[in-house]
Amino acid sequence: MTQPAKTPQPPYYAVIFTSQRTAGDNGYGEMADRMVALAEQQPGFLGVESAREDGLGITVSYWESLAAIKAWKDNVDHQQAQAKGRSDWYSRYVTRICKVERDYSFEV
Amino acid sequence: MTQPAKTPQPPYYAVIFTSQRTAGDNGYGEMADRMVALAEQQPGFLGVESAREDGLGITVSYWESLAAIKAWKDNVDHQQAQAKGRSDWYSRYVTRICKVERDYSFEV
Repeated sequence: MTQPAKTPQPPYYAVIFTSQRTAGDNGYGEMADRMVALAEQQPGFLGVESAREDGLGITVSYWESLAAIKAWKDNVDHQQAQAKGRSDWYSRYVTRICKVERDYSFEV
Repeated sequence: MTQPAKTPQPPYYAVIFTSQRTAGDNGYGEMADRMVALAEQQPGFLGVESAREDGLGITVSYWESLAAIKAWKDNVDHQQAQAKGRSDWYSRYVTRICKVERDYSFEV
């Protein structure tokens, strides 16, 4: 995972996943690593960024198209992780599907 | 700061700011708190989410319009913070301006 992600010229798409974790790991860490590895293999995947602080996590994944996002959402292993997220890992989350219209960066 | 942010029905706009911090605080913490308080007072501000882990930070702010984002970018106090960010606080950052097209949420 390169962070910040190295993305191409806009437009491209972003999925902002903001979540509040429940207490305890309950297999979350292992599954989170597995999902990142799996996402990286999906067609149209451009990059991912993730940080968690005091239980509040923000993961942003970048994609070439809405179709690529839909295919990842429907991936069978990812579906199982999503179900486990609702039953065990998250007390609350919001997923936002966005079109990145402009970006700019700074590097020392 | 309510996290995840309580945002209205899409469409609305998001600014994803992904940054890598330099070592040491150097007044960063105080300024970061001040900038969140100031952003919350801007016209068109809808909410903000933030997490930092191992120096990698993701802050997502939500806005009613591109004009509101532009006005916040041009705010004089914010401009000073941006300059300080480049000189002292960040070794690298990427800012992405996005249109949120869809969202969905889960709550226990």
